[in-house]
Amino acid sequence: MDNTNIHSIMQTLGRAAREASRVIAKASAATKNQALLAMAEAIRRDEQVLLAANANDVALAKTKGLESAMVDRLTLTSKGVASMAAGLEQIAALPDPVGAVTDLNYRPSGIQVGRMRVPLGVIGIIYEARPNVTADAAGLCLKAGNAAILRGGSEAMQSNQAIAACVQEGLRVAGLPENTVQVVDTADRAAVGELIVMQKYVDVIVPRGGKGLIERIASEARVPVIKHLDGVCHVYIDVRANLEKAISIADNAKTQRYGTCNTMETLLVHAGIAQQFLPAVSKILLEKAVELRGDAAACALVPEMQPATEEDWQTEYLAPILSVRIVADIDQAITHIATYGSQHTDTIVTEDYARARQFLREVDSSSVMVNASTRFADGFEYGLGAEIGISTDKLHARGPVGLEGLTSQKFIVLGDGHIRE
Amino acid sequence: MDNTNIHSIMQTLGRAAREASRVIAKASAATKNQALLAMAEAIRRDEQVLLAANANDVALAKTKGLESAMVDRLTLTSKGVASMAAGLEQIAALPDPVGAVTDLNYRPSGIQVGRMRVPLGVIGIIYEARPNVTADAAGLCLKAGNAAILRGGSEAMQSNQAIAACVQEGLRVAGLPENTVQVVDTADRAAVGELIVMQKYVDVIVPRGGKGLIERIASEARVPVIKHLDGVCHVYIDVRANLEKAISIADNAKTQRYGTCNTMETLLVHAGIAQQFLPAVSKILLEKAVELRGDAAACALVPEMQPATEEDWQTEYLAPILSVRIVADIDQAITHIATYGSQHTDTIVTEDYARARQFLREVDSSSVMVNASTRFADGFEYGLGAEIGISTDKLHARGPVGLEGLTSQKFIVLGDGHIRE
Repeated sequence: MDNTNIHSIMQTLGRAAREASRVIAKASAATKNQALLAMAEAIRRDEQVLLAANANDVALAKTKGLESAMVDRLTLTSKGVASMAAGLEQIAALPDPVGAVTDLNYRPSGIQVGRMRVPLGVIGIIYEARPNVTADAAGLCLKAGNAAILRGGSEAMQSNQAIAACVQEGLRVAGLPENTVQVVDTADRAAVGELIVMQKYVDVIVPRGGKGLIERIASEARVPVIKHLDGVCHVYIDVRANLEKAISIADNAKTQRYGTCNTMETLLVHAGIAQQFLPAVSKILLEKAVELRGDAAACALVPEMQPATEEDWQTEYLAPILSVRIVADIDQAITHIATYGSQHTDTIVTEDYARARQFLREVDSSSVMVNASTRFADGFEYGLGAEIGISTDKLHARGPVGLEGLTSQKFIVLGDGHIRE
Repeated sequence: MDNTNIHSIMQTLGRAAREASRVIAKASAATKNQALLAMAEAIRRDEQVLLAANANDVALAKTKGLESAMVDRLTLTSKGVASMAAGLEQIAALPDPVGAVTDLNYRPSGIQVGRMRVPLGVIGIIYEARPNVTADAAGLCLKAGNAAILRGGSEAMQSNQAIAACVQEGLRVAGLPENTVQVVDTADRAAVGELIVMQKYVDVIVPRGGKGLIERIASEARVPVIKHLDGVCHVYIDVRANLEKAISIADNAKTQRYGTCNTMETLLVHAGIAQQFLPAVSKILLEKAVELRGDAAACALVPEMQPATEEDWQTEYLAPILSVRIVADIDQAITHIATYGSQHTDTIVTEDYARARQFLREVDSSSVMVNASTRFADGFEYGLGAEIGISTDKLHARGPVGLEGLTSQKFIVLGDGHIRE
């Protein structure tokens, strides 16, 4: 397909999304929930259809030699289908964020001023070949009163179309415009290029996927992007840490899951506790086959540790590898995090009140924790209900992005004939 | 100066701002207020110095033939100097937004999750030749815990340098880094081009000025921009409006000041009340020499009215001109606003409960009002204390942007050795 054609397809899609966004913005909570529940029902009913479409995608991906981790993420199981449906039901059960009025106060002039939560408008989601994202993203955007344009990885094309059919059935059942959720059905990469520059029709882009994809989108987009770059997360063990908690948190933060963005990648240890703590935690990590790379002082305490290079401090391993550094005090730990971290999630383990307070205030990351595993950085754990991603940006939304991050607030003013003097 | 040189100057400035931002982010409210009060004192003391520097700028601008409205904005008076100082004192009196923790709740896992308000980091302000913005912007950025890079219009260069000297004296007095506020002192336009792409050193750009300047910055920036485009504001007079309030609000919204962004540019009138309302309000407006441009139905009711063109509906006159349209109902009014408005400020005049509610919910503008003049859309009137601008964006900040808009929120998690199961 030539690029002129893609341009006009995407413009048409954008225009339709903008129109639908005006309708969905004013839809009642009851109508939106009806649509979500009908989508879940259609997905459960069509399980076999979805699995068959997915089997086609998987077969094609294998002939193309897609790497096995990606095939894993592409593959839908019966359990996966049930969990997509359950996800939509959970979104239906969340309170409607749209229209919520806060801080409505009388001003000296006599007017009342407050803020009302409103949808953003049209949201473009760009993601890899993970079919479950199609249902999740559609549900979250809809509940927040937005229209969505979904562009999943081309390897999941048939799966996404099958899920989209269920989503659109749900919209129809509730009497909402089908264009509220549109799935881009061309595999052409130019579609992404078009989507991220349609300022007139798209209000925000949420890319989900590898760092490379996200960096490329952020650098080419003319539409604002809520981006999730890497997670180089730190656990700092303070001299006044409780040893038992320190070991348990460091172990959990590293080994509970290796491939997630909130997994610890660097362990910082106060020099005053290193001798007690480091050999003990290393024993546990080595038993789990975690490779340890440390600075000279750390290597001196743990014979199995290899020397870390400058590059290690800035690496998101997403693997059973951990870099370890011994620091003189909390200030050095905070400076290390500011220098090498990715402002994602960092935690301090300490029983010291002042240092807990200092760490919370001074570490400039989207989640800052005291005596808790970095693995808690997650929309469900935070009570947001569900998340569309984790933002490493500072503007608009920082950290796990739930329904609230897909909305904005406008000012409302109530008067009784008030004029400005 | 060649562009390589400007590049390296701006990089140095950016690096220094980033360093200063780490210090100012953790400064106490008392220290920041001490700096603000010392700045105000220095400005009052140096009144004659500031006026002399400004006189040089004004003289030069006149020889260059700067238009008189711009010379007006450039000119500092004794009263203007006093009001800059008072502005800084007012900012000192505002509560410190940084570090405020909200929504701290226990989760089922046992962790406590909340949000802490934090500075954005480094803010770049680009503005025209209005010296008072230098003090305002410096004060607001500082109070919100940010470093600032200020780039004012080159015609105000000497005035800005003189004000910057007072600002830096204040920082010194409080023991804060002088680089917390830096004024770009090259008149070269390439400096702006550099500033808006320094993603590493600048977290957000706030442009203040004409629509052309802002559009150019938004289209070239790689750093996020909080932008304020035009204000095509509407007043809709519903069939159930109280006639007296309707006339008073329409008059005030148009004529209290012609050149502001929250001035009404289009008056929408329900057909059922047009015969009573339109001749009455027109009489008042015509007496104030406001030019009226209407659709056919409006022209039929007011002989002095000229026919409006399609272009009128999308024009921000910033002048004593008003476009007038008669609509069949509230839905047509809302559609007109969605089609031609700029999502700035719109108001409905009605005594009808359901229509007031509908208008508040469905009009997608940064300020939506009932029975109040559009002229109230302003940071001071809203109780924000002061504003850095009015955002017509949807993401991050919408409407008047005060201290809160110059901050973000991070998640904080408090545990007691909690790990994820």
